[in-house]
Amino acid sequence: MDFAGTKSLFHLPSGVIYLDGNSLGPLPKTTMAKLEHVTRHEWGETLITAWNGAGWMSQPSRLGDRIGRLIGAKPGSVVVGDTLSIKVYQALAAAIDLQPDRNVILSEPENFPSDLYMAQGLIGSLDRGLTLKCVTPDKIPNALEQNVAALLLTEVNYRTGRLHNMQELTQMARENGVLTVWDLAHSAGAIPVDVARAGVDFAVGCTYKYLNAGPGAPAFIYVAPKLHDHIRPALSGWLGHQAPFAFDPDYHPGPGIERMRVGTPPVLQMAALEAALDIWDTVDMQDIRARSIVLSELFIEHVERQCPQVNLVSPRDPNQRGSQVSFAVDDAYPVVQALIARGVIGDFRAPDLMRFGFAPLFIDEQDVENAATILADILSSKSWDRPEFKKRAFVT
Amino acid sequence: MDFAGTKSLFHLPSGVIYLDGNSLGPLPKTTMAKLEHVTRHEWGETLITAWNGAGWMSQPSRLGDRIGRLIGAKPGSVVVGDTLSIKVYQALAAAIDLQPDRNVILSEPENFPSDLYMAQGLIGSLDRGLTLKCVTPDKIPNALEQNVAALLLTEVNYRTGRLHNMQELTQMARENGVLTVWDLAHSAGAIPVDVARAGVDFAVGCTYKYLNAGPGAPAFIYVAPKLHDHIRPALSGWLGHQAPFAFDPDYHPGPGIERMRVGTPPVLQMAALEAALDIWDTVDMQDIRARSIVLSELFIEHVERQCPQVNLVSPRDPNQRGSQVSFAVDDAYPVVQALIARGVIGDFRAPDLMRFGFAPLFIDEQDVENAATILADILSSKSWDRPEFKKRAFVT
Repeated sequence: MDFAGTKSLFHLPSGVIYLDGNSLGPLPKTTMAKLEHVTRHEWGETLITAWNGAGWMSQPSRLGDRIGRLIGAKPGSVVVGDTLSIKVYQALAAAIDLQPDRNVILSEPENFPSDLYMAQGLIGSLDRGLTLKCVTPDKIPNALEQNVAALLLTEVNYRTGRLHNMQELTQMARENGVLTVWDLAHSAGAIPVDVARAGVDFAVGCTYKYLNAGPGAPAFIYVAPKLHDHIRPALSGWLGHQAPFAFDPDYHPGPGIERMRVGTPPVLQMAALEAALDIWDTVDMQDIRARSIVLSELFIEHVERQCPQVNLVSPRDPNQRGSQVSFAVDDAYPVVQALIARGVIGDFRAPDLMRFGFAPLFIDEQDVENAATILADILSSKSWDRPEFKKRAFVT
Repeated sequence: MDFAGTKSLFHLPSGVIYLDGNSLGPLPKTTMAKLEHVTRHEWGETLITAWNGAGWMSQPSRLGDRIGRLIGAKPGSVVVGDTLSIKVYQALAAAIDLQPDRNVILSEPENFPSDLYMAQGLIGSLDRGLTLKCVTPDKIPNALEQNVAALLLTEVNYRTGRLHNMQELTQMARENGVLTVWDLAHSAGAIPVDVARAGVDFAVGCTYKYLNAGPGAPAFIYVAPKLHDHIRPALSGWLGHQAPFAFDPDYHPGPGIERMRVGTPPVLQMAALEAALDIWDTVDMQDIRARSIVLSELFIEHVERQCPQVNLVSPRDPNQRGSQVSFAVDDAYPVVQALIARGVIGDFRAPDLMRFGFAPLFIDEQDVENAATILADILSSKSWDRPEFKKRAFVT
């Protein structure tokens, strides 16, 4: 795949090197037209009839299948909707429910906090003696004990980019009767994923990062087909019912992955997701991965040569990390703000990390070299040492 | 308030009389520009920095306060996000958790099915002996027994428009130690609501019906301020945490209503909601109510005079119904399709109902009279008796 032309598929503000596509992807050029069509034509002109006429109701499964291709899921095993936290809850609640004789959710302390929070909320409301046990990654294999119901992990660590071996851990979990719930937030669109081959039970992810579906874009959930018919959804909303418009007073779960739907899909966000997926339909994830390694290796090389003040905290072996690179540095917060002021957008993660994402669709070698040079200049000149760069914003 | 000018605030397709604003409101004329600004400028130009710079992160509470004015909620007691089904789950889970010694959720068989489904899903996953008890509306007062934890009702019945006495039922519930969860799906923007005066504990609602925020627009949740600090959220997502960007591994609920937030807000849908609320900010709900009664009374009068084939199933007393009117008729499904083909958009609800919503912002007397005349013509000529009108679509 040739990446020379893909940058032009996105609207990128002039003077900006965007190394934060791992947090919010940039705007595809076709998104606005799609949004306008759905808003003006479908909603404006066809009103309520668009639920059938424009296919709004089947959008969550159709878009789910297109995401499925990127994560190795068979058609009919991924559905889109809600937020990632909700999808974590659904997956975890279903896994727990399938394991009545086991009472531990196993995770790691550095998992994305919201995943841990959702587990804590689920445990608190279930009130049946469940516990959340967090161990460091190296201790996970030995912690897959008889009382573990589910293993809840994010494949790519959100701070460091460290990559779990999904295939190996999933196999170990399966051998120990543990169901797996993988969060692919930093995987989908970043690295090749094959949930079917790995034998993953549940996977969830978001679409506003590498997939470029826009702020607040809906999440997705994958459930292994063999489990579909055994799941009792905790969030048993009407659009997961086998006949939503029969208005049956009793819940009967829909066929297959449909039962993981809950409420009315966010049609406008779905439109933006559809436009974003038009780009992804043409992409081979192996090509993306190869290119992202070239870019991240180049960045590490340039930064380490020019910036003695920083320490790489991401794994040095590219096969051990996702598509992002993080460095620890003193005063990371104002350094990141100074970078943003110079047009290099990465982000800060407490307490001392600068995080940079490499999305090959719109980042090239020149961007990488320029970003490293600007970082070196900021650090050596201490131009970050200004009050306006130290004022903390709410969202970091 | 003068309604002569408000129709021009909406895009209405030519030749259409839209009596389905109770299901999906029409497109406000300012929505597209707002969406374009948020998409092209905020997302496109300012990227990740818009979470702070464009105020995306605080949007759920700011829009919540604007909805709050329409339902009698004090600032700081409503927040926007997720779907209505998710909000029902949150409210019900919180209510149940506050009532450890009570084990019944009381509702009515004709409540909106998804509300009952969410209760069933919650009960199934909690597995602590809870039951859902549904009794007809007249039996609710006597059913508020010592074992009832929460009363879950939709103020306006989705099929018939029948209105509960929220004030009275809430008071009875309170006197019996029962927490109330009111679904305002067909109330917000339809009738005056005063959750604070009625002493409601929880209220939820959607914004895509009378509020005109577009397909899949986010829901809202109200929690009585006195309960805020006592709630342990079941859906404990990071944006309900007291410091989301501290990335604390343990969940600590945020202040006040903030703890009812879960995941990343749907920014594009929020933009459409904001545009819709610009209209509602200028509206007095008492005026809306008076006008909606004029319109619905006129419709009933015209339909009953011209259509001997139909039976009114909504309460005849306008004070006993919301802003919609339903008639039973034989072959309701093809009749509704024939109406839509003639430009009169209402909807069908199984088994035999035609449902028509009266939204005074964009419906006037002429619309009402024309709709009744077209209905009469379709019924007397039997022009509904054609194969294309009998083919069932998925969404009815």
